[in-house]
Amino acid sequence: MFLTNSWYVATSSHEIERKPFARTILNQPVVLFRQENGSAVALEDRCCHRHLPLSLGEVSGDHLICGYHGLRYDGAGTCVEVPGQESPPPGAKVRCYPLLEKWGWIFIWMGEPDRADESLLPNWWWAEHPEWKRSDMHLLEVDCDYQLINDNLLDVSHLTYVHKGSIGNDAIVEFSPETERQDRMVRMTRWILDRPPPPMYKAAGRFSGNVDRAQIVEFVPPCFTVNYAICKEAGSDLDADNGRIRIDHMALSAPTPETERTSHYFFSFVRGYALDDREIDRVFEDGFLDVFHEDVVVLEAQQRNYDRNPGISGVNIAVDAAPMAARKLIEDLIAAEVQS
Amino acid sequence: MFLTNSWYVATSSHEIERKPFARTILNQPVVLFRQENGSAVALEDRCCHRHLPLSLGEVSGDHLICGYHGLRYDGAGTCVEVPGQESPPPGAKVRCYPLLEKWGWIFIWMGEPDRADESLLPNWWWAEHPEWKRSDMHLLEVDCDYQLINDNLLDVSHLTYVHKGSIGNDAIVEFSPETERQDRMVRMTRWILDRPPPPMYKAAGRFSGNVDRAQIVEFVPPCFTVNYAICKEAGSDLDADNGRIRIDHMALSAPTPETERTSHYFFSFVRGYALDDREIDRVFEDGFLDVFHEDVVVLEAQQRNYDRNPGISGVNIAVDAAPMAARKLIEDLIAAEVQS
Amino acid sequence: MFLTNSWYVATSSHEIERKPFARTILNQPVVLFRQENGSAVALEDRCCHRHLPLSLGEVSGDHLICGYHGLRYDGAGTCVEVPGQESPPPGAKVRCYPLLEKWGWIFIWMGEPDRADESLLPNWWWAEHPEWKRSDMHLLEVDCDYQLINDNLLDVSHLTYVHKGSIGNDAIVEFSPETERQDRMVRMTRWILDRPPPPMYKAAGRFSGNVDRAQIVEFVPPCFTVNYAICKEAGSDLDADNGRIRIDHMALSAPTPETERTSHYFFSFVRGYALDDREIDRVFEDGFLDVFHEDVVVLEAQQRNYDRNPGISGVNIAVDAAPMAARKLIEDLIAAEVQS
Repeated sequence: MFLTNSWYVATSSHEIERKPFARTILNQPVVLFRQENGSAVALEDRCCHRHLPLSLGEVSGDHLICGYHGLRYDGAGTCVEVPGQESPPPGAKVRCYPLLEKWGWIFIWMGEPDRADESLLPNWWWAEHPEWKRSDMHLLEVDCDYQLINDNLLDVSHLTYVHKGSIGNDAIVEFSPETERQDRMVRMTRWILDRPPPPMYKAAGRFSGNVDRAQIVEFVPPCFTVNYAICKEAGSDLDADNGRIRIDHMALSAPTPETERTSHYFFSFVRGYALDDREIDRVFEDGFLDVFHEDVVVLEAQQRNYDRNPGISGVNIAVDAAPMAARKLIEDLIAAEVQS
Repeated sequence: MFLTNSWYVATSSHEIERKPFARTILNQPVVLFRQENGSAVALEDRCCHRHLPLSLGEVSGDHLICGYHGLRYDGAGTCVEVPGQESPPPGAKVRCYPLLEKWGWIFIWMGEPDRADESLLPNWWWAEHPEWKRSDMHLLEVDCDYQLINDNLLDVSHLTYVHKGSIGNDAIVEFSPETERQDRMVRMTRWILDRPPPPMYKAAGRFSGNVDRAQIVEFVPPCFTVNYAICKEAGSDLDADNGRIRIDHMALSAPTPETERTSHYFFSFVRGYALDDREIDRVFEDGFLDVFHEDVVVLEAQQRNYDRNPGISGVNIAVDAAPMAARKLIEDLIAAEVQS
Repeated sequence: MFLTNSWYVATSSHEIERKPFARTILNQPVVLFRQENGSAVALEDRCCHRHLPLSLGEVSGDHLICGYHGLRYDGAGTCVEVPGQESPPPGAKVRCYPLLEKWGWIFIWMGEPDRADESLLPNWWWAEHPEWKRSDMHLLEVDCDYQLINDNLLDVSHLTYVHKGSIGNDAIVEFSPETERQDRMVRMTRWILDRPPPPMYKAAGRFSGNVDRAQIVEFVPPCFTVNYAICKEAGSDLDADNGRIRIDHMALSAPTPETERTSHYFFSFVRGYALDDREIDRVFEDGFLDVFHEDVVVLEAQQRNYDRNPGISGVNIAVDAAPMAARKLIEDLIAAEVQS
């Protein structure tokens, strides 16, 4: 069961042009296209007549025309013309989904349209602030429940095992994380002090000795996670400009459920240092993309084992505090939605 | 649920030789082969012993021998020999299906054999009449319910949208069709008068001005449809020989259910003009094959949306009269069959 | 339903090294690896924490470490360390399966570990006796119920039809087999006297005339079958050394259920004659491998027909005595296991 009264990333902005574009979100077929003024529209991808996906049709002006019998829909999903007859029959319309286009993504509201609430979007201002540099937009299609991705992002002790060649090392689990819970937010913070940097940070920061390093993960339900990494010379002042690189790097992640067991995993990186260093572009951009691909191997293997034994439970360990808090938050929001 | 006391096309005549041939029809495994005198036989494709498909066996004389333990079946499906023992055990037999071979197709009766009734075959005499020229026999395997194919053939207003580069244009929906219903037939007729011809007809008929054009579709349940197209110089007498080409073209279609959501789509074309014109052969034969492939894209996309929401209904529009009448006819015949 | 208190072949010995190795057996995910002293260990292939397959982890010393969060398991499946906390939580363990390594295979006990009983292994001493020569170990992944493989091995009248180009001919069904039943064994014996040899035996034995030939099949439940073939000059003394080749050839087969409808089909050949003849190596090794591949075509086609009609029964014929006795033995053992 999904939280429907919520935003999800439907597409990256650059995926959508005039031509209709199909994507399944929360099991629902959705078609997106841009109207003449460039604004994006999302409709149910299923003609109300004989159910052809409207994404096989054509956009004309601000309308989408079904490719089978020419039913013409406006941007609100209302059928405004049926060829061969005076007027459309009663009830000829398809669902229309509220959209917000922001930070290079198109967010879609999957529940009751009149409850769509922009204030429920996470505030990802770094994505377009001049003191931060944005990477490309990424999308991985992953065969797993999106909550396994949330778990993965909120529990960064796995770096030691899954990413030991890049951003993980043995120092991480020596330090316990703190978990904060708020109404619509979970934050995990871990400082790893005076320890060697993992390989990718060492290369990016050209550190010769130990570092202080923070993992700060902020989760907004149901699927928005910022993984903020700080890495600086051990013992240096957090705000000091000591002529050495201080790494400030974030991954902005938004896995959107396609079905109960498949996800559209949207993510992008921003960094707040060495903005003009093309070598750092390469190290971090390519490096983190590899890291996310390593996670996909783990996530899909987990899912296959859950598929064998649906509903299987597991033992919990110390590092599960943040992912479990996130799951609880989603569960509570769904329960509230079902009751309302 | 299928109508079983009915003919369906099992194969084209040229598909069947002595060697056993397997095809699933109405969810049932069927094996076909020819006996020594050339007559075709259809049996259940499943040995009554350990269920190996008999299509993996061999034909010997008029018998089919199982490829696993050599059980020998006659053309009525009776096991007449079991190697290693005196006589076959009681009940050793497989189903035998009545066949009719006609017009280049082998028709199979899927219900009670003693109800098989040749008079229930549609009369497709054009297929072998000297004043008509037959195309190749075609077969497309389509991932959709055969009734979506019936709908498609009975509702030719879709030509404007699906086939606008070949046999469709905007003129079609300007004219309303007539629908006639009989006990075992639905006929739709539309005359499009004094309008430009669509591209393929223009090329085939070398028309320089407007044309009168008819779409006449005749459906015999559960899956036999003739799409008759006439195209002539606008205003000319229907029977006049005015030295200009008058196009008479038919598609004979017979989609056979393989399962509830897959079909063997058999079809062939005949035409009643310019029989010796090889250029017309090419224009119509290749052109209509492309048209049918365009329909397959639509049909399979529809099916995928029906698969998401089994039992979903849709709004009806004016052009649905004929397809809805055809569905009602099938529904009534199935209801009668279930009661009998 | 499977017999669980039983041995099954998990792997060939050479498949397992230090690196974790995954295989599904009786629907259960199993991971195998070797400890430092070379002994093999089999654990549930699913971390008790978040269910990642342990086969994606690493072996360190005698322990298996989960590749996601570093949970460390000993060879008994007990979690002995969880990184980031003092001690593992209660109940942190995975199943451990008893193993026996013998005759080039690793046998696994899938039921209650304390019932594991070495005496239930079949005695396949030929596999490592100097008077017998062993072939390579083979494994075919077959899309069928393992009991269809048992049937196939116990009913060698099918050689006439499935393997007529190699080890079958028409003489086989002229002679009736004898079937013996014991508590945990079914044996079928057929002597084919004074008949021409089938092609592969003729080539291997360079026989110029008729032969006497035995098919002796010994089955130990749930899945261990020896197919012993003897072939000698017709009328010659069974024990005589008459300067002619006497063929003694065995197939040792052990199909292990992966799921209800897929099997890991392990087998190997041994022969007791012409041990140093490399030409015979080739004729029998390659020839019998082809024979097993011919069986796979039949087995998978049978399974597809059973899949269409689960629970379908069939008529029985004379040659079914041994396979039916084997199925009854397995059924009785499962019934006893369920009651205990």
